[in-house]
Amino acid sequence: MADSDQNIIRLAHGGGGSLTNQLIKDLFLRYFDNEYLKKLNDSAILQSSFSQFAFTTDSFVVSPLFFPGGDIGKLSVCGTVNDLCVSGAKPLYLSIGLIIEEGFSIKELERIVKSIKDTAQEAGVLVVTGDTKVVEHGKADGVFINTTGVGAIEKSIPVTGSRAQSGDKVIISGPIGSHGMSVITSRENFGFHSRIKSDVAPLNGLVNTMLEITEEIHVMRDATRGGVATVLNEIADQSGVSIVLDEEKIPVNEDVRGACEILGFDPLYTANEGVLVACVGAEDAEELVKAMQKHPYGKKSSIAGSVKDDSPGRLSLKTTIGSHRVLDMQTGEQLPRIC
Amino acid sequence: MADSDQNIIRLAHGGGGSLTNQLIKDLFLRYFDNEYLKKLNDSAILQSSFSQFAFTTDSFVVSPLFFPGGDIGKLSVCGTVNDLCVSGAKPLYLSIGLIIEEGFSIKELERIVKSIKDTAQEAGVLVVTGDTKVVEHGKADGVFINTTGVGAIEKSIPVTGSRAQSGDKVIISGPIGSHGMSVITSRENFGFHSRIKSDVAPLNGLVNTMLEITEEIHVMRDATRGGVATVLNEIADQSGVSIVLDEEKIPVNEDVRGACEILGFDPLYTANEGVLVACVGAEDAEELVKAMQKHPYGKKSSIAGSVKDDSPGRLSLKTTIGSHRVLDMQTGEQLPRIC
Repeated sequence: MADSDQNIIRLAHGGGGSLTNQLIKDLFLRYFDNEYLKKLNDSAILQSSFSQFAFTTDSFVVSPLFFPGGDIGKLSVCGTVNDLCVSGAKPLYLSIGLIIEEGFSIKELERIVKSIKDTAQEAGVLVVTGDTKVVEHGKADGVFINTTGVGAIEKSIPVTGSRAQSGDKVIISGPIGSHGMSVITSRENFGFHSRIKSDVAPLNGLVNTMLEITEEIHVMRDATRGGVATVLNEIADQSGVSIVLDEEKIPVNEDVRGACEILGFDPLYTANEGVLVACVGAEDAEELVKAMQKHPYGKKSSIAGSVKDDSPGRLSLKTTIGSHRVLDMQTGEQLPRIC
Repeated sequence: MADSDQNIIRLAHGGGGSLTNQLIKDLFLRYFDNEYLKKLNDSAILQSSFSQFAFTTDSFVVSPLFFPGGDIGKLSVCGTVNDLCVSGAKPLYLSIGLIIEEGFSIKELERIVKSIKDTAQEAGVLVVTGDTKVVEHGKADGVFINTTGVGAIEKSIPVTGSRAQSGDKVIISGPIGSHGMSVITSRENFGFHSRIKSDVAPLNGLVNTMLEITEEIHVMRDATRGGVATVLNEIADQSGVSIVLDEEKIPVNEDVRGACEILGFDPLYTANEGVLVACVGAEDAEELVKAMQKHPYGKKSSIAGSVKDDSPGRLSLKTTIGSHRVLDMQTGEQLPRIC
C-alpha cells in the first residue's frame, strides 16, 4: 500500500470489517469517550428521567465543508441542538451518521470529528451512537453528516409553531443572514474575498436564559434554511395570524448587507445557524431582550416585529421609508447546500 | 418549466422553501400520517413511558436502490428496527433523513417512501420526524437515507455483546448471505441473471417470540455488514470467549451458495438484513429454536455453534469433513454499498 493510501478513507473503512473497527477505535472513540458510545453495541442504552422528550433529525451537505466561523461538524451539532432547544427541550444525546466519499482525507475527517466534539461539549450533549458509510469516489461530495437528537422536555411550555397570538412581539436573537453569506462567499466560483463569519452556534444556553425570564414564549424557531422570512411565514400560517416586521429593527451586519446587495440576495431569506425568532407576550418582551443581550449569542437581540390578527398567514415588512411590502414564502431555486 | 421537470427532484425541493413544503405535504404526510409528524415542528414531542431506552442510527447507501425482496426504503427501516430489537428494546419511533440527488425521479422516490411506510407499519414503528436535502446531480447517487430510532427497554435483560458465556449455544435465525448476494447480483456490471431474494425483514416480532421463551438470551446481534463471521468475531472479542461454528448446521440457501461459489464470496462474510445470531443458555436452546421456526422470519433457525472458554476472541468453523478453520475478522476491501 502506498504511504498516501494510509491517509485517505477507503471503501473498506465503511465495510463493517477491521478497517471500520480501526476507524472507530483510532478516531471516534478517541474524541467521543463516553460510557455509552464505548460499549460499541448496536444501540446506546440510555436512562429516561423525563416523561416527554423531543426527537429531531437533520442531514448536512454543506459545501464547502469548512467556512469562516465553522465547518460541517460544528454545523451538524448546532443544527440538531437548536431544533431541540427551540422545541423547549434540553438537548441530551446525539447520533452521528457519516457518509464519506472514498479518497477523503483522514486528517480533514479528524478536523471535523474534533469540531463535533468541541461543539457537543459546549452544548452539553453526548454523542452516544454513530454509523459510518463510504461510497465510491464521485458518488458523494466529501462528507455528509446526519445528526439526530433526543432532548428532555422538563418544563411543560408548549412551544409550537401554532401558538403565536395577536399582540405578541417578535424577537430576533441576532444579526441575520451571516451563515448563508459566509458559505456562499466561501465558494471558489464566487470569487469573493470577504471573510463573513457564520453565526453557527448552539443556542440552548440562550434559550435557557429566555425561559428563566418568562414562560410566555409562545413560539421559538431557529431561522435556518429559507431565513427569517420563511420561518415567520410558516409561523403566520400555522398560527393563523399576520406578522409585521419593522425593517429598522432587524439586526443585519454591514458585511452581510453589502455582500447581499452585490450578489443579489435578501438577508431576510438567507440562512442562519445561530439565530432564533420568538413570538412572546408583549409585557415580557423588553425584559427578555435585555436578558438575551447579555448572552454571548444574543448580544444583538431585538424586538423586530409584532403579531396581528388581520390577514391570517401574511408576513409583511414595514420598510425604513414607511411603506409596506409583503414577504412571501420563498419560491423557486435557492442556493443549495447551505447546511 | 418543461413537463418532465415536474417529475424530478430539483435543488429547491431541499431548500426549505415552498417546494420543500410541497414535497412534505404531497408525499411525506400522505404516507406518514401520524399526530407527531403532521405537526411539522422542529422536533417531534413524544411521551416517555419507559425508564430506559435504546437509541441507534444507520445510514443507507445501497446500490442498486431496488433489488429482489426489497429496496433502500425497506432496508432503512429494517436496519434500524433490528438494531433496536437485538438490543432488547421495543422499537417505537424513527426519524428519516433523505439526501437526494438532483434529477431523481419523484415516482421512484414515492416508491421508496411507500416502502418505508409499509415496513414501518409491519414493524409497528412510527416515522415521527424527517429531513430532506438535495445535492447537485453527480454529487450523490440517487438517494441516501439515514434512519435513527428510539426503542423502549421494557424488560431488564441486558443483551450486550459481552455476555456470551462458555457453554452457550449459538443460534442463527435463518439462511445466511441472501441480502449481500441479492444486491451484488442485481448490479448490472455483474451480468448475473439469478434473482436471489434479499432476506431484509424487521426482526422485532421474532425477537419478541424469543423473549417469551426464555430470558437466558445473553447476546443478540443482527448479522449485517461483514456477515455472521464478523459479528461472531466481535462477540468473541467483547465477551472474551471462543466460538465454534458447525458448518453442517449453518443455514445457507442453494442459490446463495451457488452464487458465492461462482463469484468468489464466502456466505459467512456476506451481509444479512433479516438474520440474527444469538448466544443463549444451552438448556433453553432447543425449545427456543423450535419456537423461532414457527415464526415467518425464523423458519430455518438452527443451533449452529457453541461458546467455549479456550482461546478468547477466536471464532472457528468445524467443517463438514471435520477439520477446523479459524474465521478471522475480515480485513481489506469488501464489496461496498450493500446497505
